Amino acid sequence: MNQHPDYLLNKITGPADVKQLTLEEMEQLATEIRQLVVEKDAAIGGHVGPNLGVAEATIAYHYVFNSPVDKIVWDISHQAYGHKMLTGRAQAFLDPDQYQTVTGYTNPQESPHDYYAIGHTGTSVALAIGMAKARDMQGRKENILAFIGDGSMSGGLAFEAFNNAAKLHSNLIIVVNDNQMSIDENQGGLYISLAELRATNGQTPNNPFTAMGLDYKYVADGNDLAAMIAAFEEVKDVDHPVVLHINTLKGKGYQPAIDHQMAFHWHGPFDVATGTSTGAANVEKYADLARQTVAEQIDAGLPVLALNAAIPGAFGLKDFQAKYPGNYDDVGIAEQFSITYATGLAQNGVRPIVFENSTFLQRAYDQLVHDMALNNQPVVLYISNGTITSGSKTHQGGFDIPYLSNIPNVEYLAPTNAEELQAMLKWALQQTDRPVAIRQPGQAVVHGVATQTDYSKIKYAVDAGEKVAILALGGFYELGRAVQTLLTDQLGFKPTLINPLSATTLDEATLTALRTNHTVVVTLEDGEVNGGWGQKVASFYGPTSMRVKNYGAAREFNDSVPMVELKQRYHLTPELIVNDIATLLKD
Amino acid sequence: MNQHPDYLLNKITGPADVKQLTLEEMEQLATEIRQLVVEKDAAIGGHVGPNLGVAEATIAYHYVFNSPVDKIVWDISHQAYGHKMLTGRAQAFLDPDQYQTVTGYTNPQESPHDYYAIGHTGTSVALAIGMAKARDMQGRKENILAFIGDGSMSGGLAFEAFNNAAKLHSNLIIVVNDNQMSIDENQGGLYISLAELRATNGQTPNNPFTAMGLDYKYVADGNDLAAMIAAFEEVKDVDHPVVLHINTLKGKGYQPAIDHQMAFHWHGPFDVATGTSTGAANVEKYADLARQTVAEQIDAGLPVLALNAAIPGAFGLKDFQAKYPGNYDDVGIAEQFSITYATGLAQNGVRPIVFENSTFLQRAYDQLVHDMALNNQPVVLYISNGTITSGSKTHQGGFDIPYLSNIPNVEYLAPTNAEELQAMLKWALQQTDRPVAIRQPGQAVVHGVATQTDYSKIKYAVDAGEKVAILALGGFYELGRAVQTLLTDQLGFKPTLINPLSATTLDEATLTALRTNHTVVVTLEDGEVNGGWGQKVASFYGPTSMRVKNYGAAREFNDSVPMVELKQRYHLTPELIVNDIATLLKD
Repeated sequence: MNQHPDYLLNKITGPADVKQLTLEEMEQLATEIRQLVVEKDAAIGGHVGPNLGVAEATIAYHYVFNSPVDKIVWDISHQAYGHKMLTGRAQAFLDPDQYQTVTGYTNPQESPHDYYAIGHTGTSVALAIGMAKARDMQGRKENILAFIGDGSMSGGLAFEAFNNAAKLHSNLIIVVNDNQMSIDENQGGLYISLAELRATNGQTPNNPFTAMGLDYKYVADGNDLAAMIAAFEEVKDVDHPVVLHINTLKGKGYQPAIDHQMAFHWHGPFDVATGTSTGAANVEKYADLARQTVAEQIDAGLPVLALNAAIPGAFGLKDFQAKYPGNYDDVGIAEQFSITYATGLAQNGVRPIVFENSTFLQRAYDQLVHDMALNNQPVVLYISNGTITSGSKTHQGGFDIPYLSNIPNVEYLAPTNAEELQAMLKWALQQTDRPVAIRQPGQAVVHGVATQTDYSKIKYAVDAGEKVAILALGGFYELGRAVQTLLTDQLGFKPTLINPLSATTLDEATLTALRTNHTVVVTLEDGEVNGGWGQKVASFYGPTSMRVKNYGAAREFNDSVPMVELKQRYHLTPELIVNDIATLLKD
Repeated sequence: MNQHPDYLLNKITGPADVKQLTLEEMEQLATEIRQLVVEKDAAIGGHVGPNLGVAEATIAYHYVFNSPVDKIVWDISHQAYGHKMLTGRAQAFLDPDQYQTVTGYTNPQESPHDYYAIGHTGTSVALAIGMAKARDMQGRKENILAFIGDGSMSGGLAFEAFNNAAKLHSNLIIVVNDNQMSIDENQGGLYISLAELRATNGQTPNNPFTAMGLDYKYVADGNDLAAMIAAFEEVKDVDHPVVLHINTLKGKGYQPAIDHQMAFHWHGPFDVATGTSTGAANVEKYADLARQTVAEQIDAGLPVLALNAAIPGAFGLKDFQAKYPGNYDDVGIAEQFSITYATGLAQNGVRPIVFENSTFLQRAYDQLVHDMALNNQPVVLYISNGTITSGSKTHQGGFDIPYLSNIPNVEYLAPTNAEELQAMLKWALQQTDRPVAIRQPGQAVVHGVATQTDYSKIKYAVDAGEKVAILALGGFYELGRAVQTLLTDQLGFKPTLINPLSATTLDEATLTALRTNHTVVVTLEDGEVNGGWGQKVASFYGPTSMRVKNYGAAREFNDSVPMVELKQRYHLTPELIVNDIATLLKD
């Protein structure tokens, strides 16, 4: 039910309605937007600070420009709640029953005012240049805007686009939303200049934008609605690329989000009055155990540097930094740099470990291949979110085995439990023969044993049975165990269950030995089947009579599809798998 | 035999010998280095202009610094011939019989003065920061240098590293070798500032380096040996990061390389006196045919934009640009931008086609996934060098099927001949349903027919036989045909030969139908087997009794390994494949 039938937002069906409002009414809109951002995020979680900071800029945009003919590309699009409210989607924020009718990012399926599904950083300027060039080639005149945060500017793609922007001799407006924050703190020399620009009201000649050949304007208070309207009116229909640098306050209007900008960049459900989390109490996390192992190795004298690219919170690394400041670095949103930097560290005697999310590590694919792997440097990668989820398609986590496991020299280990994760990580940090990646299971922590301490030779851990062998990788080992149990119950014999340890290296001796008393092998992996690990097993057995069935995700993007549906679709339940096996055995 | 027994270089066994020379003797060394660069490249091909431009900087480096304790990272390392000559490898340039004893890039296997195998751009600063941080963590004091060209600076990784450099509060010397050229012309606003810096002897405040928080020094003539020695002496043992911007002449000392800087960036064998190519006369190239198809579509009214990232020469695009200037763009060395830019172009109504090399396209992996494919925009990719070669491991071309074919929404077509390539490209440009990539065969042009005009449904082209089906993808179709012929001769029946058209989409109906009268399927692909196309076929047949054998490259880096050896190792000859099949049929 609509929680605020009295809100002005109820009357806003699109940008045309915004244009009819007085400044005072638009100020009221900004207040309403903020209230709804807080209410919705408090209920179901979401980006808080970014959406609070841009309320005035969003209203001013829709007041001055003519969306969707004029077009804006929101970088990352995690700050587009207000934009959604003003473009016909206010009910998705006013009415809790409709919260799930819109996604957390821009979405062309929802509205003609959205042009892309976006969730990674630094893409907006490049997309906008493409749209502007396409406009020019077709002889049109609409305004094209990119709206990019200062935090996104540390990434290489953003820079490549700023550099190319100067080549466009026509309308392009790049709004740099400077809230003096990345997801965490900003990192790097660029931010010294941005601070100087703010301190001089945009006047210092030490200007990274003019140094890239771009026109430049500064707005000292980007949360001043009248100032933002004036600034947009000034640059509207400009005939060349211009940077509009606006200074805003991340979290504005909600004190807990101002006091705790990192925590409220994205926040799970919280109590509005206090800002305290209402979600589940702290449970054991694999990342905690990983940090513990890293700390033990440092304490034992290993020269480890723990790296991340702007997401220390995802791994609890702020605590680690406090205890081991000399063994920690955050490079900002610069995933490419993180891997090449780690390669240089390893070459010169330090043991780097890069903590990264599956979907963000793919931003450094060439660095993984050409820098780290080609030079066979002992970089350690600790990879989270390599798992099939019900999350946004912009952050899909099932591609890491396909993109990482086919790179030469890399060993991609997949632990099945806490003890194995720690044993693998300890070995990875101590060895210097090659790059090693560790895939954090996407499931809740389980405890068990590590079957070996040296992973330079992969020797499968086998719970021996007969006829059918279940090879269950990493976090899917527990699914494999459930399949083993159910199959024993239903088919009357005990199948073999194997922990294959690695997404890259096959234990060919064990696979060959299975042929003596097995006719069916199933592989279970928590990610895309195509290009992944199971297909290596299928290829290995290809010339033989062994029947092989690969389980995992299909080659597709899934946008917030419930896990129960995905499990049915991909046959990732013990019941469906045992049914398939029964059919295979009859065949 | 040593062609120059009188050269001073014969007495240089390492940097210590350089330090004993007078300025005049070092000038003589520069002349000798230039002569040997030209002689060797004229004989076997190689990078010409880059090596000629840095002779003085290289000598000055080894005169002032203490290699290999002090360390320099050469960006791309295509300019390291002089460095090799001064570090014990002069005979590999003096003696044509020894030309092949060193690679064209830095190589840790050759010398302790080389730290990395490098061939892609923009990695040096990130590697050097890693080495510097590792030095600091271990309490050492050596100098760390990165040597990067202005052309490399348009790439995002270089920027990420410049931004992070300012965080290092210790020794780091970044030499920016400004020769006013990328591989082709420089692209973007950054180069306006570099020109301003050169014009003002480094004095303009519009300085992209100070705007990233870095100290800055300028050398007006980087080909003045005394000036370079003085500049290096000034920054040696500096206690903070500093940019040393040096202005050099690409091709200095060899007039054809100065007059034709693009052609002599890398050049095949040529006549020293005239600079004209001595290689094979012009033969028909697939890229010529691709350009022809693009031109036809533009002439027919399609709003096409042909893009590339700094390598127009590899596709003959300079001629295209001359005829269709409004339909052409070079984004500089900025592969990430090229893909996201193309996504924006496609979204706003233009049909972009990106011409790219397999090994460089991998630099845009996240943009392929998150921008192009996630948004399912009809970007066309025309991909060259997707092939197993005897080239440098730094530019290995066998990874594109693994990294591209597992991305959702992408159709990766693999033409087998000229007519099919043109038909596929025409369809790709006209359709707007999805991103389509075309894999240029790595072999010489063959002519044939296109079996379909609409590739939205993949229907295998089948030359029907029995028992054995040979699925031969793209450029390996001719190998498949040879296998078919030899097998018919040797085993007395005609096997089926199939052109599978696509590295992404299986024609499951045809594959299923094969089961009625075939027991063996072999897949042939010109690239890495792991994660590739053949393993999808193996996985498809996994649950059946069909025997499948996948052929292609192993998961490994190969550094200039002769093709004849690779073909033996991977069983990529008709004889070896027919032998394997005979064994499988008996099994």
